[in-house]
Amino acid sequence: MMLLKHKLRAFVAGAAMLAAIPAVAQQNTYKSDSTVIRKFYDDALTSYESYENLRYLTKNIGARLSGSPQAAAAVEWSRQVMEKMGLDRVYLQEVMVPHWVRGDKEVGRILSGRNGSQEVNILALGSSVGTGAQGLSAQVIEVQNFEELEKLGKKKVKGKIVFFNRPFDNKHVHTMAAYGGAVDQRGGGPVAAAKLGAVGVLVRSMANDIQDVAHTGNTRYADDVEKIPAAAISTRGADELSAMLKSDPELKFYMRMTCETRPDVLSYNVIGEIKGFEKPDEIIVVGGHLDSWDVGEGAHDDGTGCVQSIEVLRLLKEQGIRPKRTVRAVMFMNEENGLRGGRKYAEEAKAKNEKHVAAIESDAGGFTPRGFGFDANDEQFAKIMGWKDLLAPYGLHEMNRGGGGADIGPLKGQNNVVLIGLRPDSQRYFDYHHTEIDTFETVSRREMQLGSAGMAALVYLISEHGLNGGSAKAGK
Amino acid sequence: MMLLKHKLRAFVAGAAMLAAIPAVAQQNTYKSDSTVIRKFYDDALTSYESYENLRYLTKNIGARLSGSPQAAAAVEWSRQVMEKMGLDRVYLQEVMVPHWVRGDKEVGRILSGRNGSQEVNILALGSSVGTGAQGLSAQVIEVQNFEELEKLGKKKVKGKIVFFNRPFDNKHVHTMAAYGGAVDQRGGGPVAAAKLGAVGVLVRSMANDIQDVAHTGNTRYADDVEKIPAAAISTRGADELSAMLKSDPELKFYMRMTCETRPDVLSYNVIGEIKGFEKPDEIIVVGGHLDSWDVGEGAHDDGTGCVQSIEVLRLLKEQGIRPKRTVRAVMFMNEENGLRGGRKYAEEAKAKNEKHVAAIESDAGGFTPRGFGFDANDEQFAKIMGWKDLLAPYGLHEMNRGGGGADIGPLKGQNNVVLIGLRPDSQRYFDYHHTEIDTFETVSRREMQLGSAGMAALVYLISEHGLNGGSAKAGK
Ligand SMILES: [Zn+2]
Ligand SMILES: [Zn+2]
Repeated sequence: MMLLKHKLRAFVAGAAMLAAIPAVAQQNTYKSDSTVIRKFYDDALTSYESYENLRYLTKNIGARLSGSPQAAAAVEWSRQVMEKMGLDRVYLQEVMVPHWVRGDKEVGRILSGRNGSQEVNILALGSSVGTGAQGLSAQVIEVQNFEELEKLGKKKVKGKIVFFNRPFDNKHVHTMAAYGGAVDQRGGGPVAAAKLGAVGVLVRSMANDIQDVAHTGNTRYADDVEKIPAAAISTRGADELSAMLKSDPELKFYMRMTCETRPDVLSYNVIGEIKGFEKPDEIIVVGGHLDSWDVGEGAHDDGTGCVQSIEVLRLLKEQGIRPKRTVRAVMFMNEENGLRGGRKYAEEAKAKNEKHVAAIESDAGGFTPRGFGFDANDEQFAKIMGWKDLLAPYGLHEMNRGGGGADIGPLKGQNNVVLIGLRPDSQRYFDYHHTEIDTFETVSRREMQLGSAGMAALVYLISEHGLNGGSAKAGK
Repeated sequence: MMLLKHKLRAFVAGAAMLAAIPAVAQQNTYKSDSTVIRKFYDDALTSYESYENLRYLTKNIGARLSGSPQAAAAVEWSRQVMEKMGLDRVYLQEVMVPHWVRGDKEVGRILSGRNGSQEVNILALGSSVGTGAQGLSAQVIEVQNFEELEKLGKKKVKGKIVFFNRPFDNKHVHTMAAYGGAVDQRGGGPVAAAKLGAVGVLVRSMANDIQDVAHTGNTRYADDVEKIPAAAISTRGADELSAMLKSDPELKFYMRMTCETRPDVLSYNVIGEIKGFEKPDEIIVVGGHLDSWDVGEGAHDDGTGCVQSIEVLRLLKEQGIRPKRTVRAVMFMNEENGLRGGRKYAEEAKAKNEKHVAAIESDAGGFTPRGFGFDANDEQFAKIMGWKDLLAPYGLHEMNRGGGGADIGPLKGQNNVVLIGLRPDSQRYFDYHHTEIDTFETVSRREMQLGSAGMAALVYLISEHGLNGGSAKAGK
């Protein structure tokens, strides 16, 4: 198709003889592109280096919330890992990050005069204020959404704990869609509830299925609204609380959380770079976020994205490929509770007038990749679609518009940069996301490495052919 | 494309007015097909019934090797489950099956004068003879393949344990290809080694990565060759043994296995059926195998295939769909060490002159499905390809030729039956396959249910439109 168009254009220009050259050259390039891509996969599927990196990051360093000693250790570790790779440049980018600490293990207890007392698993939401050491005890009012809450009004909400219990819509094949349909409760619950005089908030965990573990995640306050304590309750706990409320609407819930926000801390984005030999000023970013929540080990979220990004650089070097354009692996800091790293990276890019061609983020788990999502203009997207047949043999069938990622989002609008999100299989993501069970053991080496190789392939194609200015032969 | 052909044919026949009718009708059918398929997915993704069936089969019944009490319990349980569903017919099909028992937990020990002794995990291969209670101790000769073994000859092999140590080729993106490239060692090792006078066989476990667990699986003997004991050794144990052999080629290996083959046992295929209302004599099978190896719980292999097959019938009934053709869920017995159930089913089908239109097997794990493989003629395959756009929204992109499954294989050649294999993501399959860690906990409800719904969709399309005789409107 593209070949045909190519020929046609050449014929129209009356350069019939010359037309054969780009066509053949393009064919050769394709043959060689496919060989390079095959090498990436061969290497990734037989290498243990990235998996061992993940083991170190998750097992030796562990959970690494922004501002924590573990986050600092992860910065230094990833800097060292990339230093040892003999890249053209490894550097840190300063960024001030929030420093929230969970404190003691939370206590959550249903207190029913009728049905007795029952412990349930809760986790303070990130950024939440604590309850004080005595904890907080109040009646519970259950709602499915903000409209329902508004209708209840101050009279029914005042002095109570608002329990947001709208579950994931499991009918969505892609679980991110289910998450998107429920996560407003976690982000906006505390402000909406406090406006009506509530004293606390419980949010049903962001999970597809019924589990004992609670899922933390960030929440937001507003300057002019009282900050009330907010916790995630496990889906099983939420179902139990909901059932008990039906038989005893007067029951109380006791929650104790000693979390607090401390002064901001100096931290860093960690960046490793291979300079492009033809267009060194054109930059392709591949990244993940180095911080994680403070429970579990931050394996799928987002240890895999970090070690995959480093792996992309390793694959390029190992296969002896000097990219035409500059390729950067970026470990962003503070995706989870502030996005300060992503913002800082984009600010500096703008200040330095750096030209980003594309940014790819892996932040949806280290599962078998199904494709990529592209935030691109029509011309760019058409060009990418020209590469479909090179990626389909590796199971990358879902090449759709939309996508990107939180950390790369702030780059949007700079020099027509294309923002790209790796799209792994999403079925298990919300089994682990933001929980104590997001551990190394849940990651399959091969699944993760298919993601590394897929990103390396896309980085290579963009580096070779560019993303702006017409056909796949943009580089000429 | 198909529409175009349709129109063309009509025009050629000079029936221009009539031509519009099939075109529109086809479009309507498609709209309704897509609605039905969406309902299957909505139902499957929100239902826990099949997952609870799997829990019962794996946790309450457990491992169920042919001839074992657990296999008998699985027959009775699956019969009862289908009886309760109010199907048109539930019945058992008698089949005599082998009865091999593992006996005591195996002992495998490397005995090196230089490096001391070291235990490694081994599992007797299915059908293997035992070593006697005293066990067997002999020098080890390591080979990568049969050619290498042949070259060594009787002199170097006689009296030794042959250690087949060719690993999976991890470069294969699809792990079944890696399995296919290594499993000859497990099946053919004992006969090849015994012909040269070996006293025992160790086979590197059929796994992609380095693990402590050994992977069992069936092996074969020949009537005219001595039967020698054969075991799988964990991949980690294999690497250790290989390394120790390098520093001490004289080391011995001690293996003790008390496995034995007992007389055949009467068992059953379990079959549930919904009668077709338009062409009841045309049959579509969807199946898995009810037996499993005797270690672990037979969750991915093949508990998921069984409960998914039952789920297909439930989805049809629950969504109020009376299929045009007869749909049968078949739990085959004895796939793992004899295939007696699959053979018996095909024999009876032939004897009764049953007309099977298609048979779909799920026996590659309960992972997110990526597509189907089809053993079909050109016309049939073209017809199936006409349904691609109905299945792609659910991630079923890999619709390729080749496929089927072991249990449905014996049907091949009967009345142009199309043999179809569900193709789940293969990356984790050989982490669990034939091991003690193939347990319920490794199955994701959503991943498994995407397989159930995908099979229901395909069963429905075949039931509505048939697979023989031209266009997608074959039913008219
Ligand atoms: Zn993340
Ligand atoms: Zn099987």
